[in-house]
Amino acid sequence: MSRAHRVVIIGGGFGGLACAQALKKVPVEVTLIDRRNFHLFQPLLYQVATGDLSPANIASPLRAILRRQKNCRVVLGEVESIDAREKTVTTAREAFGYDTLVVAAGSTHGYFGHDEWARLAPGLKTVEDATTIRNRILAAFERAAMETDAAIRKSALTFAIIGAGPTGVELAGALSELGHYLLRNDFPGIDPCELKIVLCEAGKEPLGMYPEPLIRKAREALQRLNVRLVTNGMVTEIHPNHLVIQTGKDSYETLVTSNVIWAAGVAASPLGKVLAASTGVEPARAGKIPVQHDLSIAGHPNIYVIGDLAAAQSKDGQPLPALAPVAIQQGQYVARRISRKVYGDPEVTEKPFEYRDRGSMAVIGRYSAVAVVGPKKWQLSGWLAWMAWLFIHLMEITQFRNRLIVLFQWGWTYWTRDRSARLITNREAVEQT
Amino acid sequence: MSRAHRVVIIGGGFGGLACAQALKKVPVEVTLIDRRNFHLFQPLLYQVATGDLSPANIASPLRAILRRQKNCRVVLGEVESIDAREKTVTTAREAFGYDTLVVAAGSTHGYFGHDEWARLAPGLKTVEDATTIRNRILAAFERAAMETDAAIRKSALTFAIIGAGPTGVELAGALSELGHYLLRNDFPGIDPCELKIVLCEAGKEPLGMYPEPLIRKAREALQRLNVRLVTNGMVTEIHPNHLVIQTGKDSYETLVTSNVIWAAGVAASPLGKVLAASTGVEPARAGKIPVQHDLSIAGHPNIYVIGDLAAAQSKDGQPLPALAPVAIQQGQYVARRISRKVYGDPEVTEKPFEYRDRGSMAVIGRYSAVAVVGPKKWQLSGWLAWMAWLFIHLMEITQFRNRLIVLFQWGWTYWTRDRSARLITNREAVEQT
Repeated sequence: MSRAHRVVIIGGGFGGLACAQALKKVPVEVTLIDRRNFHLFQPLLYQVATGDLSPANIASPLRAILRRQKNCRVVLGEVESIDAREKTVTTAREAFGYDTLVVAAGSTHGYFGHDEWARLAPGLKTVEDATTIRNRILAAFERAAMETDAAIRKSALTFAIIGAGPTGVELAGALSELGHYLLRNDFPGIDPCELKIVLCEAGKEPLGMYPEPLIRKAREALQRLNVRLVTNGMVTEIHPNHLVIQTGKDSYETLVTSNVIWAAGVAASPLGKVLAASTGVEPARAGKIPVQHDLSIAGHPNIYVIGDLAAAQSKDGQPLPALAPVAIQQGQYVARRISRKVYGDPEVTEKPFEYRDRGSMAVIGRYSAVAVVGPKKWQLSGWLAWMAWLFIHLMEITQFRNRLIVLFQWGWTYWTRDRSARLITNREAVEQT
Repeated sequence: MSRAHRVVIIGGGFGGLACAQALKKVPVEVTLIDRRNFHLFQPLLYQVATGDLSPANIASPLRAILRRQKNCRVVLGEVESIDAREKTVTTAREAFGYDTLVVAAGSTHGYFGHDEWARLAPGLKTVEDATTIRNRILAAFERAAMETDAAIRKSALTFAIIGAGPTGVELAGALSELGHYLLRNDFPGIDPCELKIVLCEAGKEPLGMYPEPLIRKAREALQRLNVRLVTNGMVTEIHPNHLVIQTGKDSYETLVTSNVIWAAGVAASPLGKVLAASTGVEPARAGKIPVQHDLSIAGHPNIYVIGDLAAAQSKDGQPLPALAPVAIQQGQYVARRISRKVYGDPEVTEKPFEYRDRGSMAVIGRYSAVAVVGPKKWQLSGWLAWMAWLFIHLMEITQFRNRLIVLFQWGWTYWTRDRSARLITNREAVEQT
């Protein structure tokens, strides 16, 4: 009897996990390697940053999710090298031989060459990022409450979010609600007019990928939330107490703020470089790995790249967006291909991957969202879109228990506006106040 | 009109918060200073360490708790100096004049002169301590799952808890349940017999302050949970991969373990030294500040010390235990004294503080606890004591929302034995695996 086909999956995000789960009944040996012991529901990470949710509410241990899947082994570790010729993947502790490799290592923040900005403008990718941002936001209010110097107060109470894609817009909305809640309840001594939230976008519009009527709705919602939107504004400098935005050919605006959050660029996981070196493929924009129509790397039919790390294209040559549904569908597609290969199905090389866009949505504060839904691309906005957003996100959270807890926390927050997870849990943040 | 009497309270733990709240209707100006922006329900901290609860479930923002108390200002800051002559307390940013000072700064870990143990054997006092311990516990299982060397596996799967007071016993019980759950579900490849939990106690018995029949019950419960209890065992050395316990005059035991948790000694907050220097009082054992029968410092009738920092005594000269109810009653007592002083009540100096012991309890794993309850000192054990423990702790949690969430999490955990907060959230812990 020949040994089972070995599938190694790097990354337990949406893509890698979907692929592993879709292989449940296929006679293969799956090894899922991740640096973290949990799967993170990243679309709600901004709610950890604003104190609405606790990290554990949106993170599920990978071993718990895959407990009943007998053909899958979970390995906690960081992949250090990939040998495409020997077909092995190596962590600090162990080497894993594979017949098929699925690389779903995701992305990290990209600062467009300004790596020194990382410290001043944290991004929102990991649980630690989210608690860091939460600590900084809450510490800024504490600092403002103690400060009598008007200039320093102003800097503490001005929040700049760089990038008005879905993450930036959702974060701006949640931050506005948190800020106004805090000023109304916890810091009655601060004039609410002192709170400034500025959302900077280098492009022409917020939520650029959405149709024009929804962009208008998003602009209106941001305005209602007192978020100042700066479009066509490219950030050129970030310093501890101010940043500079280029708003025209020779016009610049200086924004006094000590709170900058990065929601602009993403770059491929550093593992992309390792993979490129091993396979001889040339990385594309932002370090992404170009893939063929079947998501494999040219010349390496047994190495697939999915999710944010893959530079995949739609039928009409458009790059696919870095969204969870894309990664999930890619993971499932690759699992189907592996399954056919294992069963010796001749059709294995036939059908290219095609992204079925079921819609996308962004919430903008309380009771408001924009959404494009279904194959007909219906446009929704306002309360209805918000309800749809709540429902869909709730259903997508991985564990039933977390679903209930998130539902409870949302219910509580939206009725009382109170947020429970308003903890400054980092000594550094406290010492800076 | 004369200005209001100014009360400065240092510390928002059980004692300081109780004092502030008891002054709600008294015409004084209260300033509550704490290094953290939240009140922590420490009795449940061990459940954060074992992944049962999230930090936010047992922490409530001080500003939220005191929101409706108009006469109380919350200040986030670390007190750097106390000037008893000038009647001022100074943080890095601000000086606060007081008419009455209440010092409720609590305690920290005490390593009996072995400060180098702090790194190897973290204690359980802060939210960060609890997540550090959680990360280490979960990382140890991951390490064991990857390790083929039997000796290293053994070291990874042996957990030593130093100190069998309530914290040590409760932690040992919770850790045993977590460990057996993990081995049954997440790590089927590890033989459950490899898990060893050792509870070291320098004294003769675990839970030394409890009556003998309950101690026997506690021993039985620990045995059922597969916790090995070493009494009369003084830890003399702690190293990264082993510790040495002195079990007799010339007999020593070496325990191979890379997981040591400190639940043994506490030392007064470093603020005790600052206070002693300013008031000229000589610190007592473990740096605690001796107080008079009215909890004030001799010669300083307007400076009170309460909670873990105070070396207070019962009527018969016994030191009061470092428990939340003691701190709470002391805080309320001091508030009554301040109130009488403000209203010019001549009885202000009359009645000494007297601790009303309503009982104490410790849970030992699932369905089991020991408790001494009420003025008649009824002894409870087993399921009934466990239910009493659950009920009382739930009722004591500060915010209604957290009470509901903790109730839900407990219900879930005790029915399914599943724990949601099993996250390794620290990069250091992962890199060590």
